[in-house]
Amino acid sequence: MNNLDELMKRIDKFNKDRDWDQFHSPSNLSKSISIEAGELLECFQWNNDNYNLEDVKEELADVLNYCLQMCNVLNLNPIEIVNNKMDISEKKYPIDKARGVSTKYDKLKW
Amino acid sequence: MNNLDELMKRIDKFNKDRDWDQFHSPSNLSKSISIEAGELLECFQWNNDNYNLEDVKEELADVLNYCLQMCNVLNLNPIEIVNNKMDISEKKYPIDKARGVSTKYDKLKW
Amino acid sequence: MNNLDELMKRIDKFNKDRDWDQFHSPSNLSKSISIEAGELLECFQWNNDNYNLEDVKEELADVLNYCLQMCNVLNLNPIEIVNNKMDISEKKYPIDKARGVSTKYDKLKW
Amino acid sequence: MNNLDELMKRIDKFNKDRDWDQFHSPSNLSKSISIEAGELLECFQWNNDNYNLEDVKEELADVLNYCLQMCNVLNLNPIEIVNNKMDISEKKYPIDKARGVSTKYDKLKW
Repeated sequence: MNNLDELMKRIDKFNKDRDWDQFHSPSNLSKSISIEAGELLECFQWNNDNYNLEDVKEELADVLNYCLQMCNVLNLNPIEIVNNKMDISEKKYPIDKARGVSTKYDKLKW
Repeated sequence: MNNLDELMKRIDKFNKDRDWDQFHSPSNLSKSISIEAGELLECFQWNNDNYNLEDVKEELADVLNYCLQMCNVLNLNPIEIVNNKMDISEKKYPIDKARGVSTKYDKLKW
Repeated sequence: MNNLDELMKRIDKFNKDRDWDQFHSPSNLSKSISIEAGELLECFQWNNDNYNLEDVKEELADVLNYCLQMCNVLNLNPIEIVNNKMDISEKKYPIDKARGVSTKYDKLKW
Repeated sequence: MNNLDELMKRIDKFNKDRDWDQFHSPSNLSKSISIEAGELLECFQWNNDNYNLEDVKEELADVLNYCLQMCNVLNLNPIEIVNNKMDISEKKYPIDKARGVSTKYDKLKW
């Protein structure tokens, strides 16, 4: 299985089969994304460079899973919302101003 | 543009064009995922039900964007890691045990 | 033991005894605060109202512990920094404008 | 003002004056702690060592503020719950096993 649509359907079916939609309000999914993001961060808690790649994969998958479930619940296309945000970011961070600096857009020199 | 591979290439090019790969260690991307997950959570801070859908879309897109960038950096296929984790979850949460309850797998009755 | 100064010294001694100061950079402590905040949030993941108070106490204590350890490391007085921030908040949120609304200060009507 | 009891009363009065207790369920405060922890983490997003100390003070104060407000709402003594958790941690991490290693307690060699 190597297709995003199929994956989103699999996630939806997994939750419907367990009657879990009742728990998956956008608010609860947002909490879940934060919780899993914390577990991913734990892979790097005391050391930025030595991490267990298997743990990282699992925790990153959990974050992605809840993000895709939120897209299911809100009827959003994940590819579309990220592309829309990229359109915004490309304007906020023009290449010639932003190259090589991690400055936030509202502090970039124009 | 409606394809995950193309989106991941767009994200990669966006960062390479700005010479931002130097900032995008797995550890820094993990922090970024947590930070953006917090911003998404802010959409629901004081109210679980009334949220601004446009804000939710943008913040969810930011979380997804950094997750995909982490896949780029670690050379992971996002579809594959989520499917692998689904395989695990399907075993941890059998339908007949897990239906209708939000109990964590290690407290489910077997 | 019922005194904040003594508690901060206890935390400091706990870490020095274990030679853990090497891990406690401000950046790593900041990650730890986010990780523990995620564990606290997990107490409310699927239900806002039914929570296990003992779990909440432990996770809230973990967040506070790392916050106090960050004050130790940066030589900050926790009482003082919170009071300073309260001074700012009292100006940002005047009683007559902010009463009964959860509006963020930059959207309050002046 | 240099006393924890007085600070907690100040925070409580600040919220009562604005009729904000209605927003301050334990669940919403837990979300707020995660959100502010994310803002603190943002001080270290792209660089672990160069941070703006004034920003760190403000964001750390915000995390502490919501933690103390949660203690107010749940009628908890912050000093007591942290001391109780320290009692637990001292047993989980004996000095001779834990010295110099960041290993989690369930993986320490006994």
